Amino acid sequence: VPARSGILAAAQDFLEQYAREVPAAPDPAARLRAVRAEIDRTGSYTHTPDELAFGARVAWRNAARCIGRLYWNSLIVRDLRQFRHPDDIADQCFEHLRLATNGGRLRPVVSVFAPDAPRLLNEQLVRYADDPRVARTAELARAHGWKGGEGPFEVLPLLVQRTPDTAPECYELPDDAVLEVPLTHPRHPGFGSLGLRWYAVPAVSDMTLEIGGVRYPTAPFNGWYMGTEIGSRNLADADRYDRLAAVAELFGLDTAHPRTLWKDRALVELNLAVLHSFAEAGVTMADHHTESQRFLAHIEREARHGRPVPTDWSWIVPPLSSGSTAVFHRYYDAPDEALRPAFLRRADPWS
Amino acid sequence: VPARSGILAAAQDFLEQYAREVPAAPDPAARLRAVRAEIDRTGSYTHTPDELAFGARVAWRNAARCIGRLYWNSLIVRDLRQFRHPDDIADQCFEHLRLATNGGRLRPVVSVFAPDAPRLLNEQLVRYADDPRVARTAELARAHGWKGGEGPFEVLPLLVQRTPDTAPECYELPDDAVLEVPLTHPRHPGFGSLGLRWYAVPAVSDMTLEIGGVRYPTAPFNGWYMGTEIGSRNLADADRYDRLAAVAELFGLDTAHPRTLWKDRALVELNLAVLHSFAEAGVTMADHHTESQRFLAHIEREARHGRPVPTDWSWIVPPLSSGSTAVFHRYYDAPDEALRPAFLRRADPWS
Ligand code: HEM
Ligand code: HEM
Repeated sequence: VPARSGILAAAQDFLEQYAREVPAAPDPAARLRAVRAEIDRTGSYTHTPDELAFGARVAWRNAARCIGRLYWNSLIVRDLRQFRHPDDIADQCFEHLRLATNGGRLRPVVSVFAPDAPRLLNEQLVRYADDPRVARTAELARAHGWKGGEGPFEVLPLLVQRTPDTAPECYELPDDAVLEVPLTHPRHPGFGSLGLRWYAVPAVSDMTLEIGGVRYPTAPFNGWYMGTEIGSRNLADADRYDRLAAVAELFGLDTAHPRTLWKDRALVELNLAVLHSFAEAGVTMADHHTESQRFLAHIEREARHGRPVPTDWSWIVPPLSSGSTAVFHRYYDAPDEALRPAFLRRADPWS
Repeated sequence: VPARSGILAAAQDFLEQYAREVPAAPDPAARLRAVRAEIDRTGSYTHTPDELAFGARVAWRNAARCIGRLYWNSLIVRDLRQFRHPDDIADQCFEHLRLATNGGRLRPVVSVFAPDAPRLLNEQLVRYADDPRVARTAELARAHGWKGGEGPFEVLPLLVQRTPDTAPECYELPDDAVLEVPLTHPRHPGFGSLGLRWYAVPAVSDMTLEIGGVRYPTAPFNGWYMGTEIGSRNLADADRYDRLAAVAELFGLDTAHPRTLWKDRALVELNLAVLHSFAEAGVTMADHHTESQRFLAHIEREARHGRPVPTDWSWIVPPLSSGSTAVFHRYYDAPDEALRPAFLRRADPWS
């Protein structure tokens, strides 16, 4: 069957890469024979925990849109393939958040559930119900019994679905799993009155991890935030929280014409509040200048290993003062859609 | 000969496009017969003034990196194919600047010299000798007798070269051809002490205009500035004037760490000074928010004519507060290297 020869070829590519990059890896020929036998018998195969960890790390390394890849090799990989019950999926996601949060010293973590485990319907493990971006998820939660989501910045419950046709289960996130930071400004005491806040751990839960031909659709991962993601996009975008006008008003800016650069100034104040507040709260966060420098260090380090760094310029270059970041002024190795292992976008959790 | 059939095919494409888009164009079949005869006889052919004007305008419309294309159809096209002497080339370039400057109400203009006219060795008609970007041109000018360029912001002479092997002629730009704007800040009276200034008319002189298979290597064109080109790039880039630290010092910013966002704040002040000073001086300039809106209007208008708008995202999106401009949040028709008429980058003026 083409599907089987597809997975076998992908498995072979992956096992060869693993053997090439990891000197301690067992003999790839023997391992490939075992994998072929398992595919013949069952249609798929089971990664060893070491293969899984290597595969997840390389998937991060291959993420052409990610500026944070310098630390790809220290990703904490949780092998959670034994869990099948939605209650356990939810519990393990909460535990993921606790591990990743680590009292504020954030750690990059991925939790890999079995290929046929229930699916997460959330875009990220933590999202706010009044964020326009997740309006449909919030509706879905309410349709399945969730009572919250009336006020600002209420954390959405986790929605876990067993099969495409069953109703999702709703799980409120426990308080001790969600660290949040209320936003204040280092110089404007009135900033707090805007009532802005954001959560500490960005944990993407709507991508499929593919390793050696095996797809893991439930594999939430997190790094830490680069400040601009919150200050220049989540809180600023017109189709997200859209708070630039409110910030401008607080700072008394002249909003009569775009050429007063009130938006540009409000963005700086908002981004400064984000960086300041996370620092005060002791929560890991990088500014876009520093993260840009790290990314170039990553490229240099990869070059020493003879590896290209496929990169999507328009995603890597930060949305604030882009021309003044180190990553703006150069070209990169082109992204390669076919590169694996990878975290893949998908139309929906079951596609 | 392949070259002849190449130019003939390109001529045919162009003349058909011209007839399609311009209802008043003469019968394309008859025109193509004449063009074919001229190519057979001479190896090339001569555009009518109307063809030249149409071709130059469409070359602008096709410029995938240009955000300013809304006004492509009102480009002033100067047909200067009769001039061959370097003195005349220089004089006509000065006249170009006067026409484009128009007392501050800038007009988009292109000056098209004959395909075999002398070449301009300058990147733009106006450039400053202490701009690191044109260090080699400044050296060349000095090697050919230019005595200036010791102080800050001295305008480079025009360098006109008859053949690849002859020495270029140097022409100082007359004062009445170069409008400049000293930079001040709307709220910081000390800003003027930084001694910053910029010229009004960005006139690119190092690209080849190609229309219907005919190449015009001497065809300087100008629009007006978008403020960020000066405030976020020319005066800010580390390998250009690199003045962010000076601006930060003037405003008393804390430059101890990138996370204070001192660069981001200095950029806003510098960009504001640029927009403010040009407005005060009555010189046309667009801010990046407004120019972004215009570009989206351009796309809509082109769509009504059934035309795609090939666009290079990474060039179109402004380098300041990119996430808050209207052009950031979408995809575009892909650029097409083969699209003609076009302004083309080249390795050197004679290649
Ligand atoms: C360690 C700190 C990290 C930082 C600062 C960081 C930063 C970023 C940023 C700024 C983006 C663009 C997001 C957007 O514009 O929506 C991004 C995208 C991405 N990152 Fe990272 N990242 C980090 C860790 C990770 C980890 C641990 C993984 C996976 C194991 C990862 C995988 C990805 C992927 C797959 C994307 C593309 C997402 C998409 O297509 O929507 N990143 N990252
Ligand atoms: C009318 C106002 C105009 C504005 C505001 C404008 C704006 C811009 C900007 C911001 C860029 C990017 C420059 C850079 O980052 O280096 C650009 C590039 C370009 N523009 Fe325009 N432009 C205007 C008029 C024109 C005209 C009149 C032409 C030709 C007739 C033109 C042709 C081009 C081309 C060919 C490029 C690419 C240059 C390159 O590859 O280096 N533009 N424009």
